[in-house]
Amino acid sequence: MSEKEMLNAYKARLETYLDALPMTGAPDKLREAMRYSLLNGGKRLRGCLLLAANDLGGGDAEAALPFAAALEMIHAYSLIHDDLPAMDNDTLRRGKPTNHVVYGEALAILAGDALLTHAVEVMASSGHPQAFAALGEIIRAAGVGGMLAGQTLDVMNEGAEPDIALVQEIHQGKTAALLTAPVTAGLILAGAEKALVEAGRSYGYHLGMAFQIVDDLLDLEGDPALMGKTLGKDVEEGKLTWPACVGVAQARRDAEAHINQGVEALAPFGEKAAFLRALALSTLHRVQ
Amino acid sequence: MSEKEMLNAYKARLETYLDALPMTGAPDKLREAMRYSLLNGGKRLRGCLLLAANDLGGGDAEAALPFAAALEMIHAYSLIHDDLPAMDNDTLRRGKPTNHVVYGEALAILAGDALLTHAVEVMASSGHPQAFAALGEIIRAAGVGGMLAGQTLDVMNEGAEPDIALVQEIHQGKTAALLTAPVTAGLILAGAEKALVEAGRSYGYHLGMAFQIVDDLLDLEGDPALMGKTLGKDVEEGKLTWPACVGVAQARRDAEAHINQGVEALAPFGEKAAFLRALALSTLHRVQ
Repeated sequence: MSEKEMLNAYKARLETYLDALPMTGAPDKLREAMRYSLLNGGKRLRGCLLLAANDLGGGDAEAALPFAAALEMIHAYSLIHDDLPAMDNDTLRRGKPTNHVVYGEALAILAGDALLTHAVEVMASSGHPQAFAALGEIIRAAGVGGMLAGQTLDVMNEGAEPDIALVQEIHQGKTAALLTAPVTAGLILAGAEKALVEAGRSYGYHLGMAFQIVDDLLDLEGDPALMGKTLGKDVEEGKLTWPACVGVAQARRDAEAHINQGVEALAPFGEKAAFLRALALSTLHRVQ
Repeated sequence: MSEKEMLNAYKARLETYLDALPMTGAPDKLREAMRYSLLNGGKRLRGCLLLAANDLGGGDAEAALPFAAALEMIHAYSLIHDDLPAMDNDTLRRGKPTNHVVYGEALAILAGDALLTHAVEVMASSGHPQAFAALGEIIRAAGVGGMLAGQTLDVMNEGAEPDIALVQEIHQGKTAALLTAPVTAGLILAGAEKALVEAGRSYGYHLGMAFQIVDDLLDLEGDPALMGKTLGKDVEEGKLTWPACVGVAQARRDAEAHINQGVEALAPFGEKAAFLRALALSTLHRVQ
């Protein structure tokens, strides 16, 4: 199977699982708002990374699905809250109106809260023998030392002078944390030894940094029709971005350097890491 | 020790623990916003209930603190988001300006998200042998079949005709779920047998229902100076309340009936449950 076919196979399994999530007890309108953002045609990068890392470590593919789903729920919650009028005030995401535009702010806030809470509930109810360790890994990445640190610094520094150390901190928290956790949690679920989990952590970090630098570049230079969202928002909102600090040419080189380091980190896995290697390289192709 | 002294002792231990929470990695402003709402002089009913249930089951008091703290963090997050302009639009809580009034809406949304996430992180990092089961119990109570169901139905039915079945569902989710979980989780942490955990569940449910009915009555008849919050908001916002459905006199009787059933549920614990019994009875004294 080619890497593209593997990615599609992971994605298809995950979509089926997400679509079938019962969300037991949720009032209909809350379930509808949660599903609107959860099932909106995202790339499923976080979930597929977890499934791939779990495969790489020789874990049970079926048993890893609740954790892949949890990562997608956490990602969806962060986007709903990020899009709110009080935050980035975005009205369009992946070509569709954002959650609060469709359901109103109150329900959008609750749908975000509910996706975060349900992510934890699904992991806690999974019955996986490594559930507790994987849950801890994922929730720390989403927490005050991870994604929420990045979000806070991002929101607080709109309009600030370009500062590469600060942008590094924002990108690490906002993006790299939640691209690292799928790799480490996937390996933990598979029972991989600590050295391999740490190799996965390095890979995930570099992939995440490259991914966000490329995202910054695409916001400057991308095609809105292809991206399905409003572009040029970073500049408009005075967001701190990597190219704003180092220029476009250097930003491309930095993204490439991160990808190279990410690929190097995969060395302990040998040939078995072909998929993760290809995934990292494909990140760069988005701006080439 | 009297029940009042015991409650104060639980509260003091919990306050010390909450005040010392490192919230490692949180940007200063996020930590400040989290602490503003977490350390604002609340009654700590949920946390104290967990410590008392853990004591009742003979559990290690020190080891239960992270779970008592987690309940208080979940409660604080729900209040921050509930007070937002898009939700109840409250500007005063316990005599102080609400979180978004002080820190702005964006940071208030993030502080709420962060308190919920950190609650899970603290439980997942506790090292308690029963951590996973207790975490599951607490997160289900906070989830789409618990607190978030109640919040959603509450927000969606503002201005609706009084409907006792709907109010029952709202109060059960919004209040009783997060007063039940401390009791069941505390007993689980102590390693209590299943029949006792279920007795605790019945106690918590009736305590929670009584507590919310009393809260509805106080919003109608309480003293704003004593309560430290804006009163009469329920009527103003067209909230569905118990007295609006059945009248004030019947609401008092219903609260009393719930307390009696809660006290009965404690029978399997015998004399050891004196504290939980007294706590339930004190709920009624608020409106007597």
